[in-house]
Amino acid sequence: MTDAFKGKLSFLKDRVTKRIEQVIVPKSPLSLYDPMLYAVSSSGKQLRPVLLMLVNEALGGDLAQSIHAAVSLELIHNFTLVHDDIMDHDDLRRGRETVFKRWDENVAILAGDGLLVMAYLELAQTSPDSLAKVLHVFSQGILEVCEGQTLDKDFETREEISLQEYYEMIDKKTGQLFAVACQVGALLAGAHEEQTAAMVQYGKMIGRAFQIQDDLLDAISQEYVFGKNIGSDLEEHKKSFLVVHALNSPYRDKCERLIKKEKITSGDIQKIVQIFKKIGTIDAAKNEILQTLSHARNALAELPANENRDFLSELIDTIATRKS
Amino acid sequence: MTDAFKGKLSFLKDRVTKRIEQVIVPKSPLSLYDPMLYAVSSSGKQLRPVLLMLVNEALGGDLAQSIHAAVSLELIHNFTLVHDDIMDHDDLRRGRETVFKRWDENVAILAGDGLLVMAYLELAQTSPDSLAKVLHVFSQGILEVCEGQTLDKDFETREEISLQEYYEMIDKKTGQLFAVACQVGALLAGAHEEQTAAMVQYGKMIGRAFQIQDDLLDAISQEYVFGKNIGSDLEEHKKSFLVVHALNSPYRDKCERLIKKEKITSGDIQKIVQIFKKIGTIDAAKNEILQTLSHARNALAELPANENRDFLSELIDTIATRKS
Repeated sequence: MTDAFKGKLSFLKDRVTKRIEQVIVPKSPLSLYDPMLYAVSSSGKQLRPVLLMLVNEALGGDLAQSIHAAVSLELIHNFTLVHDDIMDHDDLRRGRETVFKRWDENVAILAGDGLLVMAYLELAQTSPDSLAKVLHVFSQGILEVCEGQTLDKDFETREEISLQEYYEMIDKKTGQLFAVACQVGALLAGAHEEQTAAMVQYGKMIGRAFQIQDDLLDAISQEYVFGKNIGSDLEEHKKSFLVVHALNSPYRDKCERLIKKEKITSGDIQKIVQIFKKIGTIDAAKNEILQTLSHARNALAELPANENRDFLSELIDTIATRKS
Repeated sequence: MTDAFKGKLSFLKDRVTKRIEQVIVPKSPLSLYDPMLYAVSSSGKQLRPVLLMLVNEALGGDLAQSIHAAVSLELIHNFTLVHDDIMDHDDLRRGRETVFKRWDENVAILAGDGLLVMAYLELAQTSPDSLAKVLHVFSQGILEVCEGQTLDKDFETREEISLQEYYEMIDKKTGQLFAVACQVGALLAGAHEEQTAAMVQYGKMIGRAFQIQDDLLDAISQEYVFGKNIGSDLEEHKKSFLVVHALNSPYRDKCERLIKKEKITSGDIQKIVQIFKKIGTIDAAKNEILQTLSHARNALAELPANENRDFLSELIDTIATRKS
């Protein structure tokens, strides 16, 4: 990572964090606002708002124009995490207890609802010229995230999932908010149609690669690095890239019984990951990530050559090398 | 109820229902859209959208202007019901199983989220001139509903609740969406500030009376009429008007032990309601409803005299006499 990009990332994240601190403040009833604050205070990678602002600047926009939509998107992302963690009974997120685990399910439902509504409140500050369009793109995007999460839950109990179905699911569940980030960044800069379409493609590919990498890290990372429980996808019978790839491979017989066990132990997880390595599933995931990211890089050709385009190119590299 | 008002109500509700049928259609994944459709298909009283449209017309607006905000508000109301039913473990709503009961908690979380997002998609169709303002009022309103629901849940485990705290809770949880309906109806008609403020007051009072009536019906109605489980407020240790009134009365000792029993049987409920009748709590609720509604009626004086103002006045009567 170049120093220039590092500096830019840290500057943009700082702006987002500062604005979030203005937007979500501890007030009464604390039993609503404390969990909301907790959810956003470990701010994570802030990839989505950073993308929105970088794309916007690369196309001639500026921060004053994009900050509210960017912050709104980060709040939306946090809303999805808080609700997903209830549904998945996940205990750990960004190295800390989830809202669901630290408080309870009711608190997490309300905190998630509150974050989503706060996101719309923040979005309402977008320039009135673009508001209707941005509101539509955001809402359509969140709806697709709900569809993706529904498919993700449905797939847990379905026997056969094709790679195509897997992609449909992750494109909605994860790719969509990345695509929305890039689309809205472009819209707010007044980009023309081809540029906007290219940015949507860039975001979608970044999101897809990000999710496959997430599936990979869930199997081969370490908890203290990843900040989430390792092997939780297998435990929850998620149809991750690895599982779908292995079950659609000629080596299906080698892992099917273990993957489909009702109660999967940590010993089982180790065995399954060993099989994934042996039958080429881990390599397939790594290849898929690189290929997807090359599509993202191609999409950047539609942008004028400038420093921000270089940053968007550097951002691609961080996806492939991320460890958490 | 006059025939003219009956006709108007049925016309407005029909418009809302037809639009909702256009907005929420069965599509893939059905495991998301079916529960959403189910939640809105038993369309209930549609009081909030009707209020929005009546206020709008009374101030010179028209249906083409208000229908999207009205439908959006009805979707928001349904979102709150679907999520509240999870938190309260309620099985019955409008005489049918709740989404939470018919499917499960995860489905209900996602269906609620989907309805909220659909509400914003529908709101995005509001005229761009008013959109930023309406988006702000709606979002601020929903946030207060979340605050009210948080207080409602917090109160279940708190020993002492004053009547003032009770009003703060129901004004947020129930009054707010009625107030938003009237405020946005006025805003979209281009009403001046005094009229808008009067309409906010009207809505707030209607909502407050509606909630006290709800608390009353929960105790003294019959399930087949009310469409919800009778006595569920007592079972769930809700701080309803009746409970708060009784526990703050000189006759507290007569009912405190029963009300605070961990597991309240249907026999207990009958006994508690008998005590409520004897110590004047039921009458107090009825009086409070009438007094609150008289404030609502006073607020109507700010409106120009026309047929729609008469309808808003008739609507007040339906609150006091409703059985379900």
